[in-house]
Amino acid sequence: MEIAARSDAHAEHWSMATAIRALTLDAVAAANSGHSGMPMGMADIATVLYRHFLKFDPSAPNWPDRDRVILSNGHGSMLLYSLLHLTGYEQMTLEEIRNFRQWGSRTAGHPEYGHAEGIETTTGPLGQGLANSVGFAMAEEMLRARFGDKVVDHWTWVFAGDGCLMEGISHEAIALAGRQQLSRLVVFFDDNGITIDGKVSLADTTDQQARFAASGWHVQAIDGHDPDAIAEAIRAAQADPRPSMIACKTHIALGHAAQDTAKGHGALTDADQLQAAKEAYGWPHGPFEIPGEIKALWEATAERGRAARADWDSRLAALSEAKRKKLDAAFSPEMPAKLASAIRKLKKDTSEAAPKLATRAASQKALEVINPVLPQTVGGSADLTGSNNTLTEGLGVFSPEDRTGRYVYYGIREHGMAAAMNGMALHGGVRPYGGTFLVFSDYARASMRLSAIMGAPVVYVLTHDSIGLGEDGPTHQPVEHLAMLRATPNMVVLRPADAVEVAEAWEIALNRTDGPTVLALSRQGLPTLRTDHKSKNLSAQGAYVLADATGPRKAVLMATGSEVAVAMAARDLLEAEGIGTRVVSMPSMELFAEADEAYRRRVLPGGSAVRVAIEAGVRQPWDRWLTGERGREQKADFVGMSSFGASAPEDVLYREFGITAEATAVRVRALLG
Amino acid sequence: MEIAARSDAHAEHWSMATAIRALTLDAVAAANSGHSGMPMGMADIATVLYRHFLKFDPSAPNWPDRDRVILSNGHGSMLLYSLLHLTGYEQMTLEEIRNFRQWGSRTAGHPEYGHAEGIETTTGPLGQGLANSVGFAMAEEMLRARFGDKVVDHWTWVFAGDGCLMEGISHEAIALAGRQQLSRLVVFFDDNGITIDGKVSLADTTDQQARFAASGWHVQAIDGHDPDAIAEAIRAAQADPRPSMIACKTHIALGHAAQDTAKGHGALTDADQLQAAKEAYGWPHGPFEIPGEIKALWEATAERGRAARADWDSRLAALSEAKRKKLDAAFSPEMPAKLASAIRKLKKDTSEAAPKLATRAASQKALEVINPVLPQTVGGSADLTGSNNTLTEGLGVFSPEDRTGRYVYYGIREHGMAAAMNGMALHGGVRPYGGTFLVFSDYARASMRLSAIMGAPVVYVLTHDSIGLGEDGPTHQPVEHLAMLRATPNMVVLRPADAVEVAEAWEIALNRTDGPTVLALSRQGLPTLRTDHKSKNLSAQGAYVLADATGPRKAVLMATGSEVAVAMAARDLLEAEGIGTRVVSMPSMELFAEADEAYRRRVLPGGSAVRVAIEAGVRQPWDRWLTGERGREQKADFVGMSSFGASAPEDVLYREFGITAEATAVRVRALLG
Repeated sequence: MEIAARSDAHAEHWSMATAIRALTLDAVAAANSGHSGMPMGMADIATVLYRHFLKFDPSAPNWPDRDRVILSNGHGSMLLYSLLHLTGYEQMTLEEIRNFRQWGSRTAGHPEYGHAEGIETTTGPLGQGLANSVGFAMAEEMLRARFGDKVVDHWTWVFAGDGCLMEGISHEAIALAGRQQLSRLVVFFDDNGITIDGKVSLADTTDQQARFAASGWHVQAIDGHDPDAIAEAIRAAQADPRPSMIACKTHIALGHAAQDTAKGHGALTDADQLQAAKEAYGWPHGPFEIPGEIKALWEATAERGRAARADWDSRLAALSEAKRKKLDAAFSPEMPAKLASAIRKLKKDTSEAAPKLATRAASQKALEVINPVLPQTVGGSADLTGSNNTLTEGLGVFSPEDRTGRYVYYGIREHGMAAAMNGMALHGGVRPYGGTFLVFSDYARASMRLSAIMGAPVVYVLTHDSIGLGEDGPTHQPVEHLAMLRATPNMVVLRPADAVEVAEAWEIALNRTDGPTVLALSRQGLPTLRTDHKSKNLSAQGAYVLADATGPRKAVLMATGSEVAVAMAARDLLEAEGIGTRVVSMPSMELFAEADEAYRRRVLPGGSAVRVAIEAGVRQPWDRWLTGERGREQKADFVGMSSFGASAPEDVLYREFGITAEATAVRVRALLG
Repeated sequence: MEIAARSDAHAEHWSMATAIRALTLDAVAAANSGHSGMPMGMADIATVLYRHFLKFDPSAPNWPDRDRVILSNGHGSMLLYSLLHLTGYEQMTLEEIRNFRQWGSRTAGHPEYGHAEGIETTTGPLGQGLANSVGFAMAEEMLRARFGDKVVDHWTWVFAGDGCLMEGISHEAIALAGRQQLSRLVVFFDDNGITIDGKVSLADTTDQQARFAASGWHVQAIDGHDPDAIAEAIRAAQADPRPSMIACKTHIALGHAAQDTAKGHGALTDADQLQAAKEAYGWPHGPFEIPGEIKALWEATAERGRAARADWDSRLAALSEAKRKKLDAAFSPEMPAKLASAIRKLKKDTSEAAPKLATRAASQKALEVINPVLPQTVGGSADLTGSNNTLTEGLGVFSPEDRTGRYVYYGIREHGMAAAMNGMALHGGVRPYGGTFLVFSDYARASMRLSAIMGAPVVYVLTHDSIGLGEDGPTHQPVEHLAMLRATPNMVVLRPADAVEVAEAWEIALNRTDGPTVLALSRQGLPTLRTDHKSKNLSAQGAYVLADATGPRKAVLMATGSEVAVAMAARDLLEAEGIGTRVVSMPSMELFAEADEAYRRRVLPGGSAVRVAIEAGVRQPWDRWLTGERGREQKADFVGMSSFGASAPEDVLYREFGITAEATAVRVRALLG
């Protein structure tokens, strides 16, 4: 159907949708960069959604019971920015739209969480938003089960493109959502048949509807430019008990010379073509000009949500005070005082009992203390529950039959798990943690990076954190992963040395509100080194003196996790020879780097003492704490890995790779000459 | 059906399959670790495959026209080790099986490529083998098109489990294979309904058959313990022009007390239960004991392949000498002399013309020289062809209609692309390279690690390698990725500074036979710095003096890629003030670390000169080449990133993040006091 016929049939709708297209064309032209085609193609879908269905209130953008809109094909950011501006989100001024993709603007190339209200998640890396949305929808189900549908009753709406659906993460997300029957999740698939390289069919001939159906979704296919069809499909999606995918046939860059071509995906900046497109739309207005009556139509779309919020406020007020307090607590980043006391007690008991325990097992013991006092935690594992030690008694399993369950069997889907946890953390009301092996953070990497970019307080429980996992061999043994995670900005990595440090690590992780935390935990049993109880969280400064030299200090040994015990044993050997040796436990380099310089110098003083770091991983992150290679005599050394691991029992591997007390002592003696 | 009834109906088959089960039980018991359930469940499928279909010859394990067997569910490694031993692969002695999972054995916990002949790829991280297999099958198609089916005519057979099919990478692999109609690819899905956490249905209710069918596969469902059904299904798979998935209903840990349970997945070591299982099989033999007649039956399965190889030898001999030479060249790791001369000429021309060129564009120019002289290269991109500059004229596009095409549109599937390239590289006869943005190496990470573990000579063309990509913002701007890749053992990372270094980088990458190479390339234009032609490959030593101090050396600036020009500009500023400044271009830290110490000291001498490194990434990998933090006065500094990037034009970003010549000069002056 021609544009003219469409606009005649639905004049108001088309003027509203055209406002999105015009703003998109203008912003991309001003920036001379960006992606025009998607907003121009999905404008009709968005217009119908906002006009007739979406529960939102620009005057209360963080209202907990709002619907969530996820722009998984985030390169089409101008769709979201246009919607936020047109419907009246205060922060999304026309000035911001004019500054699209400029330094300091709220309108980054891709939607960035935290840049403006109404941006629910950071997207751009394809498939992530779709996978986040599974977490959003799970959080909604969990909170509805916990607090009732009078205060929790909303939907998650996703815009997604071919790119999102080609990425592997989409499979994990779709299968998980299907298994969990997340009926409040609706995905609009921008079925425009175009990718950057050309037609989708160059690379993909998958029947997307059949594929979603195979994972238990409700599927429909419609003309994505027909407002009646869109509305009808949304109603059908809402009526069905399954998650819903609506394949919307659209024209990328609708109405532009580049319509239906790969060129249409990118920045359409040609002035004549831009003008021609506006003429085709019957849009005579100047750049960034939105006529008042069209703006008014858009602002009116928020009325339904405003009324809904007012109703919600009164329902909230009618809740019992106890329930309201619980609801507030669930959404609050503040940890309850009883968490701190529970952790302190755990530390004290642990220091006294001094068990030999794998830190993954100690983590479970910590969770057994944490989960009862923190009802918002939601645990899970990517099919390694018994290995990650992430399930505690009484959590219950989240499923369509039991939405009160607080444990998620994510399946063998590390990536989907991490992305879902991002969604949960951003939704609020729940605090997700999830487990896999440290080495399989590789699979989850793209989502973990987004946790860090967004500052999402997700806790990654990454066990089997070195060659110490033994026989499974190099594919399962991380050696570079600590370096990789430490290299990632805003990621806090904690590798606790014993059960006491594990308790401290969990306390740090749960009190962290502005970013993800990795707990790197051992498979193998480790002795309790912190047998002298200190109520203070010593790990919070990143590193501390665990044992000092008895005489003059000649050597400083630094280590993390399972290698702290190696350092302590090396110290015994060295001290016995009269070599005064300090052992520094460094559970977190990031936290130590943030500690004040005076403290850092106290822990790692200058002078002639030699330094040796011990970690069953690569050296790269340690150079900062050792001597650099300056072309002069080395006063420092590293005991660790410089290759991939091998398959053998744990003790054999430590011996063969030379990560032992004896080998450490040899290095110290060599440095001391 | 009971085991007894099955064994009565197919006595020979069952005795052979039982040999696999018995060896598995014995090896896992001896190791006291491992995974018993899968080999016990898939033994019948493997037995039928090897007896009646597989083209293999243990006496010529690397015969290029052999069928490939890929154990994607690699934890079931004892299936493969048993098959290799039973059929007579010389390296896979009974002694090796006895040493399952021990230091120095060929029988690692998961199959490790290179440990023993017959192990076609390293598996264990789930889904990887399945995704490798797509590359194996593509390589076969390409070579068959190039050399004819008289010498290239084989199949790729994959064993895969639920874990493989839950991982996102499976979607990328399945969709790519479906699009490419890889008819020589057959996947046996071990449909046993069990994962580590329990029943598959805990986490997944996907209809796998429907899902494969949605991506254009031929699908069947059979009883995976019925030899007749297995054989019939294989025949049907071979007759169909699509890739084929056979869902085999199996019992994990068949015949053991742990059959059909999650416990059956792991190590079944209980002596009584082990004995009971053997009794159920009617297997009275001792541990590791294989009766001669059963071993003979197994060895006889190789006869068909041995005969096929003899036939193949005569067909090969009948080839024209020219064609045989080409075939040899395709499979040889040796680069032709004309490649070196072509690169030398390109360097010379480039030094003379001295263009301002993005290194990604320079990479395309290099490929335009390389691809014609190296007919085994196979290029591709994960839907960023025009951005990665990976397509050169005349390559042709690989498709079902044109198997001679040397360019693959991988789709938006970075992970699937990397895994397919691993498969191609391991298959041999082709040299794959593939492109995406550096930041999206995150998606491909698990497969890239496997390239490094296996020593697969894959070239990763990773463009848009810093904040220099500009407006797309932090989700698209790598900052930690150079650190991550450098932290990975056996990964060579090259970040060339100009078009000349790009040519050198490609030469290094193509001459590398034992591992992957990353080329980190700029989006933005860069000046030619190497205007003085040197035929020697200066990048091969990892770092070299690009410009030396004119007077006494007071400062050494080190940089890579786009920041080398920044260093040169800073040098201009500093030299103008009389501060003698050396600039070291360091395209590859790995190669520099391998250079001899005397050379390293010549490039980075000791003494009082201050050192500043400049790279638009995080500092972590640079500490080694700078001064460590020793609690004493710093004589070194770093100009780079310590946070994620932002969305703005490139030049604004460099200025705002302080990565400029001026900022560098300020740091140098400060260090000099």
